[in-house]
Amino acid sequence: MTIGKLYYKSTSVLDDRLKEECGIFGIYNHKDAAALTALGLHALQHRGQEACGINSFDGKNFYSVKRRGLVGDNFTSKKIIDQLPGNCAIGHNRYSTTGLPIIRNIQPFFADLHLGGISIAHNGNLTNAIQIRDRMVKDGAIFQTTSDTETIIQLIAKSKRTKIIDKIIDTIFQVQGGYALVMMTNKKLIGIRDPFGIRPLVLGKLNSSYILASETCALDIIGAEFIREIENGEIVVITKEGIESIKPFPKKEARPCVFEYIYFSRPDSIINGKSVYEYRKNLGRELANEVSIEADLISSVPDSGNPAAIGFSEVSKISYEMGIIRNHYVGRTFIEPTQEIRQLGVKLKHNPNKGVIKNKKIILVDDSIVRGTTSKKIVDMLYNSGAKEVHMVISSPPIKYPDYYGIDTPDVKELLAANHSIEEMKKIIGVKSLHFLSIDGVYKALGHKKRDAANPQFTDHCFTGEYPIKPLDLKNQNDKDNQLSLLSNVRT
Amino acid sequence: MTIGKLYYKSTSVLDDRLKEECGIFGIYNHKDAAALTALGLHALQHRGQEACGINSFDGKNFYSVKRRGLVGDNFTSKKIIDQLPGNCAIGHNRYSTTGLPIIRNIQPFFADLHLGGISIAHNGNLTNAIQIRDRMVKDGAIFQTTSDTETIIQLIAKSKRTKIIDKIIDTIFQVQGGYALVMMTNKKLIGIRDPFGIRPLVLGKLNSSYILASETCALDIIGAEFIREIENGEIVVITKEGIESIKPFPKKEARPCVFEYIYFSRPDSIINGKSVYEYRKNLGRELANEVSIEADLISSVPDSGNPAAIGFSEVSKISYEMGIIRNHYVGRTFIEPTQEIRQLGVKLKHNPNKGVIKNKKIILVDDSIVRGTTSKKIVDMLYNSGAKEVHMVISSPPIKYPDYYGIDTPDVKELLAANHSIEEMKKIIGVKSLHFLSIDGVYKALGHKKRDAANPQFTDHCFTGEYPIKPLDLKNQNDKDNQLSLLSNVRT
Amino acid sequence: MTIGKLYYKSTSVLDDRLKEECGIFGIYNHKDAAALTALGLHALQHRGQEACGINSFDGKNFYSVKRRGLVGDNFTSKKIIDQLPGNCAIGHNRYSTTGLPIIRNIQPFFADLHLGGISIAHNGNLTNAIQIRDRMVKDGAIFQTTSDTETIIQLIAKSKRTKIIDKIIDTIFQVQGGYALVMMTNKKLIGIRDPFGIRPLVLGKLNSSYILASETCALDIIGAEFIREIENGEIVVITKEGIESIKPFPKKEARPCVFEYIYFSRPDSIINGKSVYEYRKNLGRELANEVSIEADLISSVPDSGNPAAIGFSEVSKISYEMGIIRNHYVGRTFIEPTQEIRQLGVKLKHNPNKGVIKNKKIILVDDSIVRGTTSKKIVDMLYNSGAKEVHMVISSPPIKYPDYYGIDTPDVKELLAANHSIEEMKKIIGVKSLHFLSIDGVYKALGHKKRDAANPQFTDHCFTGEYPIKPLDLKNQNDKDNQLSLLSNVRT
Amino acid sequence: MTIGKLYYKSTSVLDDRLKEECGIFGIYNHKDAAALTALGLHALQHRGQEACGINSFDGKNFYSVKRRGLVGDNFTSKKIIDQLPGNCAIGHNRYSTTGLPIIRNIQPFFADLHLGGISIAHNGNLTNAIQIRDRMVKDGAIFQTTSDTETIIQLIAKSKRTKIIDKIIDTIFQVQGGYALVMMTNKKLIGIRDPFGIRPLVLGKLNSSYILASETCALDIIGAEFIREIENGEIVVITKEGIESIKPFPKKEARPCVFEYIYFSRPDSIINGKSVYEYRKNLGRELANEVSIEADLISSVPDSGNPAAIGFSEVSKISYEMGIIRNHYVGRTFIEPTQEIRQLGVKLKHNPNKGVIKNKKIILVDDSIVRGTTSKKIVDMLYNSGAKEVHMVISSPPIKYPDYYGIDTPDVKELLAANHSIEEMKKIIGVKSLHFLSIDGVYKALGHKKRDAANPQFTDHCFTGEYPIKPLDLKNQNDKDNQLSLLSNVRT
Repeated sequence: MTIGKLYYKSTSVLDDRLKEECGIFGIYNHKDAAALTALGLHALQHRGQEACGINSFDGKNFYSVKRRGLVGDNFTSKKIIDQLPGNCAIGHNRYSTTGLPIIRNIQPFFADLHLGGISIAHNGNLTNAIQIRDRMVKDGAIFQTTSDTETIIQLIAKSKRTKIIDKIIDTIFQVQGGYALVMMTNKKLIGIRDPFGIRPLVLGKLNSSYILASETCALDIIGAEFIREIENGEIVVITKEGIESIKPFPKKEARPCVFEYIYFSRPDSIINGKSVYEYRKNLGRELANEVSIEADLISSVPDSGNPAAIGFSEVSKISYEMGIIRNHYVGRTFIEPTQEIRQLGVKLKHNPNKGVIKNKKIILVDDSIVRGTTSKKIVDMLYNSGAKEVHMVISSPPIKYPDYYGIDTPDVKELLAANHSIEEMKKIIGVKSLHFLSIDGVYKALGHKKRDAANPQFTDHCFTGEYPIKPLDLKNQNDKDNQLSLLSNVRT
Repeated sequence: MTIGKLYYKSTSVLDDRLKEECGIFGIYNHKDAAALTALGLHALQHRGQEACGINSFDGKNFYSVKRRGLVGDNFTSKKIIDQLPGNCAIGHNRYSTTGLPIIRNIQPFFADLHLGGISIAHNGNLTNAIQIRDRMVKDGAIFQTTSDTETIIQLIAKSKRTKIIDKIIDTIFQVQGGYALVMMTNKKLIGIRDPFGIRPLVLGKLNSSYILASETCALDIIGAEFIREIENGEIVVITKEGIESIKPFPKKEARPCVFEYIYFSRPDSIINGKSVYEYRKNLGRELANEVSIEADLISSVPDSGNPAAIGFSEVSKISYEMGIIRNHYVGRTFIEPTQEIRQLGVKLKHNPNKGVIKNKKIILVDDSIVRGTTSKKIVDMLYNSGAKEVHMVISSPPIKYPDYYGIDTPDVKELLAANHSIEEMKKIIGVKSLHFLSIDGVYKALGHKKRDAANPQFTDHCFTGEYPIKPLDLKNQNDKDNQLSLLSNVRT
Repeated sequence: MTIGKLYYKSTSVLDDRLKEECGIFGIYNHKDAAALTALGLHALQHRGQEACGINSFDGKNFYSVKRRGLVGDNFTSKKIIDQLPGNCAIGHNRYSTTGLPIIRNIQPFFADLHLGGISIAHNGNLTNAIQIRDRMVKDGAIFQTTSDTETIIQLIAKSKRTKIIDKIIDTIFQVQGGYALVMMTNKKLIGIRDPFGIRPLVLGKLNSSYILASETCALDIIGAEFIREIENGEIVVITKEGIESIKPFPKKEARPCVFEYIYFSRPDSIINGKSVYEYRKNLGRELANEVSIEADLISSVPDSGNPAAIGFSEVSKISYEMGIIRNHYVGRTFIEPTQEIRQLGVKLKHNPNKGVIKNKKIILVDDSIVRGTTSKKIVDMLYNSGAKEVHMVISSPPIKYPDYYGIDTPDVKELLAANHSIEEMKKIIGVKSLHFLSIDGVYKALGHKKRDAANPQFTDHCFTGEYPIKPLDLKNQNDKDNQLSLLSNVRT
Repeated sequence: MTIGKLYYKSTSVLDDRLKEECGIFGIYNHKDAAALTALGLHALQHRGQEACGINSFDGKNFYSVKRRGLVGDNFTSKKIIDQLPGNCAIGHNRYSTTGLPIIRNIQPFFADLHLGGISIAHNGNLTNAIQIRDRMVKDGAIFQTTSDTETIIQLIAKSKRTKIIDKIIDTIFQVQGGYALVMMTNKKLIGIRDPFGIRPLVLGKLNSSYILASETCALDIIGAEFIREIENGEIVVITKEGIESIKPFPKKEARPCVFEYIYFSRPDSIINGKSVYEYRKNLGRELANEVSIEADLISSVPDSGNPAAIGFSEVSKISYEMGIIRNHYVGRTFIEPTQEIRQLGVKLKHNPNKGVIKNKKIILVDDSIVRGTTSKKIVDMLYNSGAKEVHMVISSPPIKYPDYYGIDTPDVKELLAANHSIEEMKKIIGVKSLHFLSIDGVYKALGHKKRDAANPQFTDHCFTGEYPIKPLDLKNQNDKDNQLSLLSNVRT
């Protein structure tokens, strides 16, 4: 999270998706540590495309390379990898906003503490970072970034405990929010997951090397073995002596973010023993159980809706077709020089497959609706290509509440479902019918009998409004905005 | 085609696909000509990713911008588009080789003839360009590129006819091979297709503007209407007076390249009234008619095998699953710094969806086998992820012969099917069974009763060895290699 | 010379100097040919700062690297030099204009002739290139640049003679103007000077390597021995058999450009046995003989006026002081964002040495006045710093006529002396008195008794209006401007 | 000073000069603050060529642009200047080392204190920064750079005083060394000079704007009026109410660095009422008074020795000639690819003016000898060009001791005069005779009767070994080197 920008919301119409804040990766005891970190970050690229960074440690010095853009555009040359020597490395992918990213805000962050150097990569968002920061600045601390992650480092630096692990425990007792952290010191690789386990973190092994990563697909890419998920509230400390697990918090049930299943994680990643693809197919199956529509074919918004569409097709026995073709070369913003060109209805990312669509009744499957802008565009496209009817089915409930734990949700007033009934949404998007999966349908698809209202098994406030952690900084934001923006305007 | 490199063959293991030489686009009479050309080239990006160029004409001057890399990375800023003023523009995408592309070889080419400027973009390959070039160099012509396309311009420049169209006709009677051409003069936009119509070219209309493009998907992206395909041997001349069609060659049946259906064209492009997606589904259906395998699921090599897999699933009633997940961020070569890392079996582009694959009998669908290297990698990957059986089915016949009309096929000795029986190929790839669609199956799927052996309806020599045009330069290549390579080594 | 821009004149006020078109260099038979060429071009940097290029030949292939900007910014890395293998190389510096240079126009030019490759670097300007070009384009030749140098290559390519030297002789009998040429073929290094020897070219030797260069300072930088100047109208052919001298033209007296002595050549270069510094000191001595002014000190416009000022001081016995300090870091155009800033009298390049100037009568020495803009600025600066009197003395006659043989003179209407009497110029510049060296003073300083009016010993038309060669293209320029500008607007 | 590199010494043979650490500039209340700062830094470019940075404040936010390289290459475009809005700006030039500069180490530094933002630019070097830093890191402070300047900011941030000026006074009472500082807060522009006034700082005025700069030449370039020098130990606070002077230290005599006169400052800058050029001419005159040599001519190592040579010539009546020509395009390191090329005696920067030198007895004037490498090269060059005798005279005493207050002197064992007698130096350099100006000669030339041994009027320890401030960090350096180098190896 960028503290000075809590309310900043991207408004790109072309890419109306929620944004994950980051992917993180760390590896201990491998002579190609930086190269494997680059590969791991590449596998996690879907979690953040704005910028990427790698820090390494060679037993004596720390090294750092940070770049704007994709891993595959920045960390592919021997020349760059050679700038990151050592057997230990951590890395970070940052998500894409429309503004210019500030190089200083690219992680991993490094600090030269009295005990030695420490490097840190963070996925998630703290909910009391501004409060803590304010207090520390009053005491003379100098912050170099606008990131909540720096608050963690400053707390570690100021901790009066003598051992690094104790300083870290000191620190995580002070911060609140969703976080998965990978840290590297001159002796250790450390992985931490917040008390609710909101953001994901897994442990892997490659011969005698240990790996920490946001998802298992980052283990697959380098042929590493998946050991287990880091538990909620767990600290894993990897040294040459092996792995140690520390659980400083009182035991409580995990409550991982439901969007990792529905939306963020790669379909081939494994969570809790099943591939995310299977969970998503299940979501489609549940949806077909809840909804009955007469149609000629099922199509999906590629590629996000594909698994649910296949699941829906399986249950409903309606055939699945590629009704919309995706241009694989999209990825950068494209010029639309004039209003006239815009009005041509330029189809940069998706093109209707006219031959399949014409005169057909279509069920269009997608995983979610955020602002609804993309949905409307695609539905218009289908009707313009001759579709007879378009029914939209969504494999998750309506998103009505913003996130504060590491997902970049738009402002509440931009969230379609927060401001409109399903009937209104249907009209806005322009479909014949519109159906969302029920919240219990979600829990069933994900392997539970139903949602436990007293202790929900997932962090699902975007659907339910039930926030596991209070967003404390929210009320502080207004008065602090000016002072903090001073820093955020210092570009280097 | 790059003359000095006729036998150059890329050997990238990671991307074992045939390569189209190019995509071309032209627009006449639109005030945003260059911007629309950029959009059109973007839609044709799959036909060439190495480099792209646009030329425009503003009624007085010609302008040119040429860049290495993707259209979306190079022609998206107003600043670049503003360097290309005028109501007429043509553009060109060039395919990707492993060598460094020479800027001078990026099309469109421009020449300042006595009659005025002419700009040209070419998809295809001439089979007698070296012969002609040798003769012209002896007569004092100075060639600036190693491209066969320059031979066309030089012939036009030296033609003794007085009108530009006559000079062009003079020229196309001298050259042989496969070509679709778009040319721009200070008055005209001209489209030409070779006598067999090997390479594609379509005509579109956007209000009062005319468009020429390799495929209809380039019309869709700008909302233009598809008028018709340019016929084989046809010259279309667009001026402010309208369109004129010239057919200088004796009438003969068209014989378009079969790979446009199977392989190159985008699934949403329309050829002969049907979407390419439908042709490919038909290929899968025909394959399921020819082959009967007992299996738990059908999966495809994404995304090339997807439509045929869906067609195969429809006929065979075996369910279609996403057994392999594609990383959408691949596109650049990735570092593999050491032999050890390579041996980890790095999965940059495809990752098995283990949950779906484990203990299953799988039918794996792909559209073709070139060298077989990718097929082997993917099959290994499936077995390593626990597949019980992998059967491979290919929605086209074995590729046994090289192309000389604009497709970059590998050396014959690298073509798997040119050197091995199906039984041997099965063992090399490591599958339980291996099946190819028959040549008549292809013709059926594409709408014919069967292949007409006397006058084949498609250019299909890669499967059959029957070349419609003799590759004359082939025998000249050896002695000329040295002298021509002088030029190819001059980098600017 | 850029044909399409014959009348283009730079109007930079900050740098009111005549511009040399280029510096050229070639070396035969040295294993570090490209590196030594880079050093030689660096020593010749004063002759052209816009762009630089090197071509090399390794016995089999030709190589080329061309860059905008200075040699020292572009040809200093091993990586670049390694792209230019071979024992033979030629190079070229191009002068600086305000417009964007076109990469294609950067020399050396290369062409792949029937006999083999040829590379060419040219200092000077042809006066009938447009005429020849027009004729050749009509015959079907395709020109790739807007440079008159390409005319030379095209003539060589079309010559019906069979040997390369004969083709070259054929060519130089057709072109007119001022030229020093260095050419490289797969066997030879060739140097040529026009029949009048207007532009300079010298021959050097470094162990068993031969060198051709515009000035001797390019021999000094690599420790090579100066052998002799190439004679007017001479062709020098260097092969592994040694040096051959060919003099195809009827013998005539040389008539080198007087500005090489006064203005262009580096002070440490040797012409006709003496250093250019000594010639310039002599010009200052002659000036002191012609002019008598009572003053406290002599100062110069650094660094162009320094040698003449020292000579003037020596004869006049008035002490020489550094009254103006030059900022060595100037070299790029500097922003002057607002009119207000401009009016502050920003002193980017020169700053008055107030302590020396205040209350003094000053003789200010410079080597020439072109537009007079810089002179005025400097004189104003001196008065603003408290000078009591400023007398300006110029070590050459008034420049009244433009050049067509390789010097970029401004439009006649911008040449101060072409439009004003000395009395008027004195007022415009704002000096107490203004004196120019007489034309006979110049001839005396350069070692002649006086100017031979029948056969002037120097090309001195800028002072006298007596042009040795008629500028034929001048009258063709107007009608051709449009057609040629087509090409000049094609940027790659 | 870069703390982690106290003993780092550049060993470039080509550029054997002492290095100033920096030039600084600040302007208050001008709408073109950043543009004028760029111009000011350009005038101060001789004080540092490695990197440059500008910070501005627009009444609300701070802005920062930092770049490697020259001001004229980086701050000339409107686009860059527009990134630096506001009426107040400060800037910094950093000197050139051979290592890669770290962007984070480029000044001005910015910190977001509790009171608001503060920006700081520093010329000089603290002698107890490591000690203070060590203590602060133990207390939990996180340093982001390896620069001693950050120690100043951290001390300000931690000061318990409430007003910013009091925090600053708190700070300067803790640090020791040579420093001139320019600071910018959201209300003030502040200039500070250390108690001895070792490093220079002047005050200027441009209409209603105030300016702080290292030298008066930075006032001249923008047409500003020179008001006065900041006094030793003085704090000048500029607000919209005007200027306030604070002198927190006990009064003591100033003791400015003698090298500003001899060596660093631009000849046109004014110190103590006289131009630096005049001081240097005086040094040459004193030298001619002390030394008597029979010779044909006086020449200088350009441009450093020019003023002294002119002064020497005036007194000795021996004529001054340009015996060595400097290439104005040098400034970057040039390739010397092979040992053979090196042995050619490549003359990148200086070339002998052979015509003037041959058979002459020459007095060669320079301002100092550091390692002697350049001197030896130049003397060899003169002899190789035919000089009969070369006598070297130096307009300052032998440099025997290193500096710790902001000059980058080489290691003592590399300082020629620290290790050799004058007789030995004469032999090493290869001159007929070698003479240095006496220390009293220096004081006379600079306007004093003689050096006051009890209270020297200048900081002159490089000649005398008398250090005004003890270099405390020196003994701390060894143990700290490793830990600090961790940070210095983190590149961003």
